Amino acid sequence: MPYKRELARYKGIVEEKMFAIVDGCGAPKELKSPMRYSLEAGGKRLRPAMTLYVCEMLGGDIRRALPFACALEMIHTYSLIHDDLPCMDNDDYRRGMPSNHRVFGEANAVLAGDGLLSLAFDTMLAAIAKNPCQGEIKAAQAVSEGAGVRGMVAGQAIDLSCERSGAWDMDALRFIHTNKTGAMIRASLLAGGCIADADEDQMKALDDFGYAYGDLFQMTDDILDIEGSFESMGKTLGKDAKEGKLTYISLTGLEEAKKIADRTAERALKALEAFGERAWLLRELTNATVSRKS
Amino acid sequence: MPYKRELARYKGIVEEKMFAIVDGCGAPKELKSPMRYSLEAGGKRLRPAMTLYVCEMLGGDIRRALPFACALEMIHTYSLIHDDLPCMDNDDYRRGMPSNHRVFGEANAVLAGDGLLSLAFDTMLAAIAKNPCQGEIKAAQAVSEGAGVRGMVAGQAIDLSCERSGAWDMDALRFIHTNKTGAMIRASLLAGGCIADADEDQMKALDDFGYAYGDLFQMTDDILDIEGSFESMGKTLGKDAKEGKLTYISLTGLEEAKKIADRTAERALKALEAFGERAWLLRELTNATVSRKS
Repeated sequence: MPYKRELARYKGIVEEKMFAIVDGCGAPKELKSPMRYSLEAGGKRLRPAMTLYVCEMLGGDIRRALPFACALEMIHTYSLIHDDLPCMDNDDYRRGMPSNHRVFGEANAVLAGDGLLSLAFDTMLAAIAKNPCQGEIKAAQAVSEGAGVRGMVAGQAIDLSCERSGAWDMDALRFIHTNKTGAMIRASLLAGGCIADADEDQMKALDDFGYAYGDLFQMTDDILDIEGSFESMGKTLGKDAKEGKLTYISLTGLEEAKKIADRTAERALKALEAFGERAWLLRELTNATVSRKS
Repeated sequence: MPYKRELARYKGIVEEKMFAIVDGCGAPKELKSPMRYSLEAGGKRLRPAMTLYVCEMLGGDIRRALPFACALEMIHTYSLIHDDLPCMDNDDYRRGMPSNHRVFGEANAVLAGDGLLSLAFDTMLAAIAKNPCQGEIKAAQAVSEGAGVRGMVAGQAIDLSCERSGAWDMDALRFIHTNKTGAMIRASLLAGGCIADADEDQMKALDDFGYAYGDLFQMTDDILDIEGSFESMGKTLGKDAKEGKLTYISLTGLEEAKKIADRTAERALKALEAFGERAWLLRELTNATVSRKS
């Protein structure tokens, strides 16, 4: 699959730069170690890859996009560390490894998250200082919007509130998907567009794709969770829903959820038409996501 | 005391703007309420007042300094919320009111802190976008430096590490004072200087004053703690030291600590000579801090 090769290439570029930033960030080792631990445990680096790809696709210089790509991955990582805390989701494992607080303790995990969020903004401000252009400033604002109180943190707060109250409905679910997962995906795409000086129509198309792809990403995750549960543990839909995790599936049933996922993928592909052939990676990614098996 | 009147004036300006930013930030109420709760519980707003004062003192426009002043207070507030968490200092009260997690629960307190840190950077980026000048960019970098992994978060990580290991010494104490408390005070002064286009010598003088005043602030806090403890609870120095809180006093004794505080105040006043009469507020503040009774 060519898109996988390309994602792996971006992953290499992002990791090299990101670890260099962290190694040179001046943090004492007591702080740097837990920050690096979770960054190293990372997966496909999908968000920063999107930033670099969009920038290249629109003829921009990916060296200018790279600090923002790294910032996005740092912010994504901080959110996972805080999300795993005992007072939040209380997850002992993340990507098959002990979660940050299981290794370094809760207090260090809180600080590692705070440190990564701070370093992400520090990295973007350094990029602005080096290159004080509209592209850099707008890219930083896009990331800030996606990460902040109108974006990811808002999604987490509503997710938490619904989990505690049990008062889930379709509106709440949409809000959570759009913000907790989708906002950072949109920010990743938009940041790449900003650096490449994308015009208004292109930014709109990136935003539309980001909304649809973010939804699709979350839905297929939920479908996989359920199908995986059926196969491996014989869980029922009802039980999963009772455990407090709301998904489209528990609201509509599995078959209907798959139909919604297909329609969402169509919406994502439609948005990409604005870019023609150049958007091949995002197109392949969308097709792979809707039909993914793992 | 004229300096108190002036600080109260700055406090009014900062609070008006800061609450307007939070009210209009677009966060859902589940997130905004805990953010606002801790911002409202605030004290003298010393850090943002320093930013505005320095900016005015050097002939700058305080309207341009105001977003950075608000960001500093948001960052200070987020650090207090995370510091009070059960896994950190486990404080049930802050400034006589129940701490954030006692009112909203731990998970919401973590998110309120994350939200305030994000909003602080968002506010500074908006200021840069509105006015893309070197002053704004440098002010944001000064704040980022003070708040981040080479500043406040570093100080907290080392404080935590020493507390857990019990391996305190004078170097560790200095690092903690310089970073946990001092870095944000220096950042507040420097941000005001950046907006006012201070020259290199002026920035150096602000930095020197900030180092000394930050130390002084922490030392007199410790002296008050001890003297208050003697009076109200009959604690002994030895006991206080055994409880794990290291101060200059537990390392040098109360009388020597007071002498160090006097010398530190002299260092702070010396740095202010660069500004002559104009620095009257910082001068009065230093004198009041070294002789403070509460």
